[in-house]
Amino acid sequence: MLPIAVDAMGGDNAPAAIVAGARLAVEELGVPVVLVGRSAELGDTGGLDVIEASEVIAMDADAGSSVRRMKDSSLVRAAEAVRDGVASAMVSAGNTGATMASALLRMGRIRGVSRPAIATPIPVPGSTPTVLLDAGANAECSAEWLVQFAQMGVVFASDRFGIARPRVGLLSIGEEPTKGNPLVKETHELLAEGAWIGSTGAEFVGNVEGRDIMTTEVDVVVTDGFTGNVALKTLEGSLKTLIAALLAAFDSSDEARTAAGALWPSLLPLYASMDPENTGGAMLLGVDGVCIISHGSSSARAMVNAIGVAADMVRGGVVGHLATAVAPAD
Amino acid sequence: MLPIAVDAMGGDNAPAAIVAGARLAVEELGVPVVLVGRSAELGDTGGLDVIEASEVIAMDADAGSSVRRMKDSSLVRAAEAVRDGVASAMVSAGNTGATMASALLRMGRIRGVSRPAIATPIPVPGSTPTVLLDAGANAECSAEWLVQFAQMGVVFASDRFGIARPRVGLLSIGEEPTKGNPLVKETHELLAEGAWIGSTGAEFVGNVEGRDIMTTEVDVVVTDGFTGNVALKTLEGSLKTLIAALLAAFDSSDEARTAAGALWPSLLPLYASMDPENTGGAMLLGVDGVCIISHGSSSARAMVNAIGVAADMVRGGVVGHLATAVAPAD
Repeated sequence: MLPIAVDAMGGDNAPAAIVAGARLAVEELGVPVVLVGRSAELGDTGGLDVIEASEVIAMDADAGSSVRRMKDSSLVRAAEAVRDGVASAMVSAGNTGATMASALLRMGRIRGVSRPAIATPIPVPGSTPTVLLDAGANAECSAEWLVQFAQMGVVFASDRFGIARPRVGLLSIGEEPTKGNPLVKETHELLAEGAWIGSTGAEFVGNVEGRDIMTTEVDVVVTDGFTGNVALKTLEGSLKTLIAALLAAFDSSDEARTAAGALWPSLLPLYASMDPENTGGAMLLGVDGVCIISHGSSSARAMVNAIGVAADMVRGGVVGHLATAVAPAD
Repeated sequence: MLPIAVDAMGGDNAPAAIVAGARLAVEELGVPVVLVGRSAELGDTGGLDVIEASEVIAMDADAGSSVRRMKDSSLVRAAEAVRDGVASAMVSAGNTGATMASALLRMGRIRGVSRPAIATPIPVPGSTPTVLLDAGANAECSAEWLVQFAQMGVVFASDRFGIARPRVGLLSIGEEPTKGNPLVKETHELLAEGAWIGSTGAEFVGNVEGRDIMTTEVDVVVTDGFTGNVALKTLEGSLKTLIAALLAAFDSSDEARTAAGALWPSLLPLYASMDPENTGGAMLLGVDGVCIISHGSSSARAMVNAIGVAADMVRGGVVGHLATAVAPAD
């Protein structure tokens, strides 16, 4: 396969953690990688190829203007490598908005897709993750876009997690079809009507609530990018707060430290399953190529996982499956 | 003070847990209580007065039509008791929508209030809770309503938690004023302009994200009722999932059970601070009277706390403070 283009300059720990992760991905997974960035700043790349890019889009830069202006940035060059058939996918832990804009402007959309959406896997203890989309690409959406998000989310749940018959829920504030805002009510009608399902094997389970996201009740949760991003950040924040408070309690006395040490082997699998390092990143669905968006705080290990997911998605042919799912019925 | 009208028929554990909580509130807090419901079904009320109401609005009934149709329901009669000067406040663990509708239709709005909003305290370990509003009363909102929610949320944070200078954040998907949907951008301008603050002593800290809700960064988080309800349910659901997984890990082996037992004294304060039983319920702000909405699963202990909060709010004069905060400047 063609190499995965890895944005070496993007992320809180770039370039060191990114380069280290890329090298590990090659060693451990046998996945070919090409780094994109300022070669002089990358340190020992272990002989990996580098696509030279002189500019870096900052983590907090305005996405649209940066991508238009910084044509020699690592993000834009990574997206071009996919467009030009030099790389099979792109992976970045950098500015999320700029990653989306680069992928959209350089790769373009899959034919028939109105708007790409970010699909984020949410861990569910003891089960496959729930796919939440749109997790932030489109602050305003139409009902028709949300129906496409459902189609694309089903393909992702199937290709990424092997879920044969994904159950799709529409995020709302009550189970009844009459609950929610006008966008949700209109989308509910379209999803319930069922023509969108095609040959995807999906099942629409109706409205779901925020409390259902981290459960086994649903596989794909569809929402607009504003609500989805609020839900994602709220979920991450509440878990982070609780885990920090737990760790403080574990460290609050000698007795607690001893007991926590004895408990740790039992907690480790849970801790690992909840760690964003292990989810392999989110995917921008609907652009004409594989684009994996890794957490800004990604470590080398998180990059290995993200690169592995990118390779899986390329080999599995997810872009072709997405194109089939959104194609209008004859 | 006038008694607190407690809907004896509302909640998953009604009437037994409600009556038990009401009796405990009288004994422990010295707060006068009047029960509202079917006296024949209440068991031993310990001599508490009862306002007779023959109908019960089911937990899953349609709110609007139920309240219009069931004029002799416990919820409608409780709201009437406040309107008629027979009770000083109402408390219910029943159907949330019907509680709102009863309070709105019978008590009416505070002069100048466009729409009442549900203010829900979100626990923050080691600190005062964050007040989230609107947590679900209004699925669609205007920017002007959100500004009033800010004014009312500040009064609640001050009266309920003694926060002298509440920091108000607007829930969005990025800190920059340009991030979010049109409603958020318009509201941001109005909040930043500052005329709404009046003499409340509040401070607008700009946009906040979902991850900030359970932190000490902000005291009042303002949002529309759709987004607020999704955030609230997502937060509750993720904590519930994590806590269930932790308890399963604690019980996964003899070693784990022993260690967890030794750790429990250190975890108890955290567990207590996160327990919805202890938050005292949400408050419907903007109706012309005190209306406390308790969790549907409320136990007797949760009812004691909710009745205590109702009494505090009455004694503190929160309705008068709300009226002052929303009154147009001269």
